[in-house]
Amino acid sequence: MTQRIFNFSAGPAVLPPEVLEEAREDILNLRGSGIGILEHSHRGKPFMEVRDETERLIRELGEIPEDYHVLFLQGGASMQFSMIPMNFLKAGATADYLVTGHWAKLAAKEAATLGTVHTACSSEDHNFNYIPKNCHISAHPAYAHYTSNNTIFGTQFKSLPNVPASVPLVCDASSDIFSRPIDVSKHALIYAGAQKNLGPAGVTVVIVRDELVKRGAPNLPTMLRYSTYAENQSLYNTGPTFAIYLVGRVCAWIMRNGGLEAMARKNEAKAAKLYNYLDSSKLFRGTAEKESRSLMNVTFVTGNPELDEKFIKEATRNGLDGLKGHRSVGGVRASIYNAFPSAGVDALVQLMRDFEAKHG
Amino acid sequence: MTQRIFNFSAGPAVLPPEVLEEAREDILNLRGSGIGILEHSHRGKPFMEVRDETERLIRELGEIPEDYHVLFLQGGASMQFSMIPMNFLKAGATADYLVTGHWAKLAAKEAATLGTVHTACSSEDHNFNYIPKNCHISAHPAYAHYTSNNTIFGTQFKSLPNVPASVPLVCDASSDIFSRPIDVSKHALIYAGAQKNLGPAGVTVVIVRDELVKRGAPNLPTMLRYSTYAENQSLYNTGPTFAIYLVGRVCAWIMRNGGLEAMARKNEAKAAKLYNYLDSSKLFRGTAEKESRSLMNVTFVTGNPELDEKFIKEATRNGLDGLKGHRSVGGVRASIYNAFPSAGVDALVQLMRDFEAKHG
Repeated sequence: MTQRIFNFSAGPAVLPPEVLEEAREDILNLRGSGIGILEHSHRGKPFMEVRDETERLIRELGEIPEDYHVLFLQGGASMQFSMIPMNFLKAGATADYLVTGHWAKLAAKEAATLGTVHTACSSEDHNFNYIPKNCHISAHPAYAHYTSNNTIFGTQFKSLPNVPASVPLVCDASSDIFSRPIDVSKHALIYAGAQKNLGPAGVTVVIVRDELVKRGAPNLPTMLRYSTYAENQSLYNTGPTFAIYLVGRVCAWIMRNGGLEAMARKNEAKAAKLYNYLDSSKLFRGTAEKESRSLMNVTFVTGNPELDEKFIKEATRNGLDGLKGHRSVGGVRASIYNAFPSAGVDALVQLMRDFEAKHG
Repeated sequence: MTQRIFNFSAGPAVLPPEVLEEAREDILNLRGSGIGILEHSHRGKPFMEVRDETERLIRELGEIPEDYHVLFLQGGASMQFSMIPMNFLKAGATADYLVTGHWAKLAAKEAATLGTVHTACSSEDHNFNYIPKNCHISAHPAYAHYTSNNTIFGTQFKSLPNVPASVPLVCDASSDIFSRPIDVSKHALIYAGAQKNLGPAGVTVVIVRDELVKRGAPNLPTMLRYSTYAENQSLYNTGPTFAIYLVGRVCAWIMRNGGLEAMARKNEAKAAKLYNYLDSSKLFRGTAEKESRSLMNVTFVTGNPELDEKFIKEATRNGLDGLKGHRSVGGVRASIYNAFPSAGVDALVQLMRDFEAKHG
């Protein structure tokens, strides 16, 4: 593993080295079965045990109530942007969207092609650099949708949005799921592409209340109904078996490392190192408002795009990869998900200090 | 690799050991990048090279004309069952389906929930044990859909179905893609879940004529339009990066081993061993009609379900796994895709001989 470098990619992102080692073994021979995990039938006992274990670990970590399904879908969060309104936004109804970033906006835009959308709040007025304190929920929305962490803009909800308990709350948790405790019972549906905190690209975890699934539109194409997955243990057809396996291995790693409370403490400590330095720096400044700062994606600039680029190049030369900010924010973005090592944050802060000494 | 056993699974299925070894290396460190294939950004240069190489190899192997896209989707063939009529079966039009098995029937059923379907032929009268010689294409169908290999029933089209050249021909090639040469130019769209001949579960390869993509319904949800994938190199959102990588490695393996002509010869030789023995056996008999026999899935029975089960158990004890036939046919199914070794076929034939000597 000595040749590996610090990978600050926003996703797909760094995975725990122990998990990679497990995957290497199981690719040849899954737990003594004589057949690798990639080659096992999705209907056979060895894979069914893997699937069940992944679900069990997700349930344990998330303290997921009995009346919720844990589903494994494909197509990423973008497919959920469509499936949610297709299933739950009936004709004549309105869905509320909290527009706090690029992906939140896309989710709302996709829903608006299928039904009526009400923007409950938006932070677009300041290039999404904050989480609005208030939102204005419409009279009887079909659901309210928010994005718990905004990967591009480096902001994150610190508590649940202020939505009446009677409104089904839907959360895109793609970039912070299982990075901290989450109160599933306050949500009707939580979804997350796995490729940031949970595993590889290619599987979307959906945690959904049974009562909501039952209310889904019945006449949709089979693969676009949540009920198809809920009624078939997500195995109506061949699912992404390896990705489901790997999510299980990552969840087992989270469990071994103390669960979601412990993840939250580690993530707070990692982010604090960066934000504390940013607040003391004369050269770098964070782009997100302080009270909205994400623990997952730390975005910052020097104010001089050429200097930003120089810094990113120097970082790459020093084995710190994936730091280029999204084009809509510019500057630098350090994605420091669960599996990102503290030593990598130290290395980044040190590099920033050195860079500031030279260019400050 | 010594503990690995012969895996006759219908899919996910056996992969070439060399490919598994490559994957093991690249999971830690993709080609010296210091970051594993599972962790690379889908927008970064290392993964883009992987993606481009996978597409290039598919194009070379399939001799795919310039005016076709090679797309990487998710959701398996089942998602294609819906996407195809959603995109191409306009109101008032009819789509023709050649119903030669379980999956073909499901594809037709799914289309029938979205528009008008004409059954151009069916072999359901004999439990799908043959490929009909003739089909009756309707006046001006939007497209004609067939399933080139029927995994469950062990039948396979030996030549293209008899469909007028003016009708866009759509093929579900999930269980025999790249097991033999394929004339892409005669098709408007070919799709295949990767998990039999191409790689792992979790990616669907779609080869589609640009002119058809352009005719797709424009108002569908973003992730359900082929144009979204065609216009964005299949990277509108985060795709199944590892599965795309692995399809590339499998295609490179096919290339190293002589390409599709060589695959066809090997597959014919493997299947011939089994069929020749079946034709000489007094105990076992093939379930598919001779002229419709699949080179990928060899289905057979003793005629006595208890004896079938005894045989399958004995096979499992001898390191031959995954031989249980689908419940709708019963008996035994040996799936012998590209990567299935000839030695495994020899072992199966020997076991059948021994079993016949004991129980014949």
